[in-house]
Amino acid sequence: MSVFIASDHAGFELKSYLQTQFNLLDLGTHDKESCDYPIFAKRLAVRLKNDDKGILICGTGIGMSIAANRFKNIRAALCFNEEMAALARQHNDANIIVLGARIISQETAKNCVEKFLSTDFEGGRHQRRLELIEG
Amino acid sequence: MSVFIASDHAGFELKSYLQTQFNLLDLGTHDKESCDYPIFAKRLAVRLKNDDKGILICGTGIGMSIAANRFKNIRAALCFNEEMAALARQHNDANIIVLGARIISQETAKNCVEKFLSTDFEGGRHQRRLELIEG
Repeated sequence: MSVFIASDHAGFELKSYLQTQFNLLDLGTHDKESCDYPIFAKRLAVRLKNDDKGILICGTGIGMSIAANRFKNIRAALCFNEEMAALARQHNDANIIVLGARIISQETAKNCVEKFLSTDFEGGRHQRRLELIEG
Repeated sequence: MSVFIASDHAGFELKSYLQTQFNLLDLGTHDKESCDYPIFAKRLAVRLKNDDKGILICGTGIGMSIAANRFKNIRAALCFNEEMAALARQHNDANIIVLGARIISQETAKNCVEKFLSTDFEGGRHQRRLELIEG
């Protein structure tokens, strides 16, 4: 399982911090110059295979969440606490966690990613719902 | 402009409360019996025309957010405070606000919806990004 990370300029600082805490494959952006989040959402979404996971960051997380969920088999979950990060895996089998750099602290972001990467999907009735999403 | 609302069973109680506060067109669910959120996300997404807005509710908001953003021209924003609800309109021109019934209080939900319905899109560089999402 590979874990990819990408952000826009608003998320660059939080992305840099998370790279010091986890082993992540960096897909940009590479500085604080203004850029367009949909480009980075797509760049990451198309790279995910099988059990790979992704982390996307923008100011609120809303833009990344809209852009990433356009892609089939991508389930991008905007989370702002550990409980959501756990439920995103347990109930939604999310393969991308989305974080809002203006919304949560670095520490909360780190805890969310930790929980996200260490929690399994529960299946059952939740699997039926995932199939409805793609249907 | 019409404002539609839909939820799964986990969001039924918050949906009922919001119906006492705003003039909303109710697309279900109509009780607390377990149901599948993607059905309600789709039911609402396909009803939105022009300036119509929508409110979707599930336990965390994550499932509704994934399911709704599968649809072209739907921009569904999971919000947990008024600042996000304002930015969802200003920067993302979101036409659906998504709420997590297990995550925020009724009062916060009401304030988010109020802000969402009364804030305009800023356009400019944000318009270019929306076009990239659909491109």
